[in-house]
Amino acid sequence: MSEKTSPPENAPDARERIIEVAADLFLKQGYGATGIAQILEAADILRGSLYYYFPTKEDLLLATLEWRKKMFWPEVVQPVFDRLDDPLERMFGILDGYRNLLLVCEFQMGCPIGNLALELSESNPRVRQLLAENFDNWKNAVKGCLEEARHKLPEESRPGDMAHFVLTVMEGAVMLARTYRTIECYDQAIDRLRDYFDRLQSAATEWGGKPASKRHQSAHKK
Amino acid sequence: MSEKTSPPENAPDARERIIEVAADLFLKQGYGATGIAQILEAADILRGSLYYYFPTKEDLLLATLEWRKKMFWPEVVQPVFDRLDDPLERMFGILDGYRNLLLVCEFQMGCPIGNLALELSESNPRVRQLLAENFDNWKNAVKGCLEEARHKLPEESRPGDMAHFVLTVMEGAVMLARTYRTIECYDQAIDRLRDYFDRLQSAATEWGGKPASKRHQSAHKK
Repeated sequence: MSEKTSPPENAPDARERIIEVAADLFLKQGYGATGIAQILEAADILRGSLYYYFPTKEDLLLATLEWRKKMFWPEVVQPVFDRLDDPLERMFGILDGYRNLLLVCEFQMGCPIGNLALELSESNPRVRQLLAENFDNWKNAVKGCLEEARHKLPEESRPGDMAHFVLTVMEGAVMLARTYRTIECYDQAIDRLRDYFDRLQSAATEWGGKPASKRHQSAHKK
Repeated sequence: MSEKTSPPENAPDARERIIEVAADLFLKQGYGATGIAQILEAADILRGSLYYYFPTKEDLLLATLEWRKKMFWPEVVQPVFDRLDDPLERMFGILDGYRNLLLVCEFQMGCPIGNLALELSESNPRVRQLLAENFDNWKNAVKGCLEEARHKLPEESRPGDMAHFVLTVMEGAVMLARTYRTIECYDQAIDRLRDYFDRLQSAATEWGGKPASKRHQSAHKK
């Protein structure tokens, strides 16, 4: 990335630092409200360096979305998976991560992607594409959990659709918690989601389509 | 509102027109991205008139949020209630209204409040307060439906919590549909919500806590 001319200061550190600082500011205050001067100050970098790596603000936005995509698994998913084994608890563990973020930052930050999704849905197709790819990543992680927990759920509940629903609930819950500034808004919604999953599990075990023997077999698959 | 000095042009039409135009622009492109010049042009109004009614952009934002609050029942709820009688279908009818909006505007617009909620959650307390009041309005309409349908739902499902969940799902579903630009994103989420309500209804009727006779009684409590 820095072969055409020599990079203005200690690359690749500078580039990475700009991305991290910008991602953080976009998360906290939105894309439109974040000015170049703010990014320069927070990254402690010269204007020339910023323009060297990112000729436009949109280039920087795209880089932050790529970076979010790359960081999702190691930062959001892996710590939860290291801590929990049960696939459904892993899913709720991911949701719990957003709860913690809301609390730690006192509702200043929510989901980095959801935050930008509504603001930028009219942006260029590449931006929307990267927002969607980030959502896809999220859904795939949860879909994996749901596939593992498939034997606990009714046969008709498709993991992909369910993962989409879980993301839907998370994004809506973060939005409401940030607006009302109470964690109860988040908890109430996740409680309902848990109730839904409890009912799905009851349906699968009590009067679901699969015979008990088959259920027991699949219970050991994970 | 116009007693201190004489209003610059045909008030109250001008004031109302500014509010409607601004509400529309904030919905389509966000608050930050909407410039004063754009509002002047769309409302076909002079700069002096705008400043007369709304000394700051935030004053105008607050007015649009008050206006949204006022318009919610007649524009969003009443047409659905006029068309449908069943309380749960009324609730899904309200959700259907957002589906239509997404389709008609080709995903350019979603929920006017959700759209601003994430962008403005760091704004002044009055803005957040009005966003929350709009959400409250929404939840109250749905809560009313759920109270009416109480006899169909398990005793433990509290209408207020459920209404909060329904709003959560709607907001998340609009966000995803706008990002992916497919109505399937909205439909998938609402289908899961319907599945949840179907399961709640089964629980209340098939093996719920209430005996049948008691259920019938509570059907008249509303």
